[in-house]
Amino acid sequence: MDPYTRLNDLGIKLPEPAAPLSTFVMAAQTGNQLFVSGHIAKKDGKPWTGQLGLNMATEEGKLAARSIGIDLLATLQGSLGDLKRVTRIVKLLCLVNSTPTFTEQHLVANGCSELLIAVLGEAGRHARSAFGVAQLPLGACVEIELVAEVG
Amino acid sequence: MDPYTRLNDLGIKLPEPAAPLSTFVMAAQTGNQLFVSGHIAKKDGKPWTGQLGLNMATEEGKLAARSIGIDLLATLQGSLGDLKRVTRIVKLLCLVNSTPTFTEQHLVANGCSELLIAVLGEAGRHARSAFGVAQLPLGACVEIELVAEVG
Amino acid sequence: MDPYTRLNDLGIKLPEPAAPLSTFVMAAQTGNQLFVSGHIAKKDGKPWTGQLGLNMATEEGKLAARSIGIDLLATLQGSLGDLKRVTRIVKLLCLVNSTPTFTEQHLVANGCSELLIAVLGEAGRHARSAFGVAQLPLGACVEIELVAEVG
Repeated sequence: MDPYTRLNDLGIKLPEPAAPLSTFVMAAQTGNQLFVSGHIAKKDGKPWTGQLGLNMATEEGKLAARSIGIDLLATLQGSLGDLKRVTRIVKLLCLVNSTPTFTEQHLVANGCSELLIAVLGEAGRHARSAFGVAQLPLGACVEIELVAEVG
Repeated sequence: MDPYTRLNDLGIKLPEPAAPLSTFVMAAQTGNQLFVSGHIAKKDGKPWTGQLGLNMATEEGKLAARSIGIDLLATLQGSLGDLKRVTRIVKLLCLVNSTPTFTEQHLVANGCSELLIAVLGEAGRHARSAFGVAQLPLGACVEIELVAEVG
Repeated sequence: MDPYTRLNDLGIKLPEPAAPLSTFVMAAQTGNQLFVSGHIAKKDGKPWTGQLGLNMATEEGKLAARSIGIDLLATLQGSLGDLKRVTRIVKLLCLVNSTPTFTEQHLVANGCSELLIAVLGEAGRHARSAFGVAQLPLGACVEIELVAEVG
């Protein structure tokens, strides 16, 4: 099925691709791999702040991760011009702003993983690492980067 | 020398490849690169919990990292069907569950690096980053992901 | 413009490439990608220790990140023999030793990003992730790894 049909079925409208916070770029291609910069979670266009285990529960963190998945798709759309050029999401790195006692980073990360699979189907199925970081830029609750294979 | 001979010499029997905790896959190939998901340390089939600097010493952390090395080889075996198809371990990312004062993440990570070199010889020699994370999924003490070049 | 001319204009003399802390290598090539190991910040040849938010300000962290940029170029020079073989810096992973309340990891990371662009020009423009880690090997304040495309 077409990713745009799936986005429509899910009621998701892709936002404008995010601009980088500073000097870097949001995606860099080498050969048929696209390395996408870490995207922080945003809510109403501002950093979605919070720390899991302190002032944010797993379910909310998972929603934040899902919203990053949408922003990552927007960046892929902006970089490639067509989401159908994504032949495979290869790898996610999921950074969860965590207290030293929060241990459900994998459940938070599922918010992004499930969204990518829902939109891209089998091409969205990826390798992944998720872990707890001490803090993130601008106090964001989650940051996710990815490597995609493109055709 | 053959990796299976080396495993035998080291008295290591590869376990069944790990199953992912959730929606993702344990390894994704693009071209001749295999991206392997973060593997958390396990003991007796359960997460090997602990935090370096709090309730786990460097030597135990190094053993945990070595056990992840064995699990990573099991995943490579399961994905490729033959460890001799690994032409190079390219890169490790070693996440060590650390208090804010523990500074021997590189010594912990050596447990995995040394095992991979012992089994794969020169093909096991890799680039690497190791660092201290605030916490890991299920409270695991160490998590390691890798990129391998495959033939 | 030539990277060596730019280094000269910036008054930067590349140091000897760093030696790995242990069993791994500082860079591993696969196809036309060079994966460079995490480099910790150094000052006068010793680990540049400190934690952002505790005993180091953003501006000093940015200087430390810039010094890592120089060391990364030294490793690229040592591995490739000629910096002009770098056709693109593809991706940086910037680990900032942070308290749970420090949220300017992206500003710290700019120290490295800006240096790479100053020396390599458009070829230095990269995708990037930056985040706060609980602690780093030998107490270093910043650690950065990269993936480069080489010709």
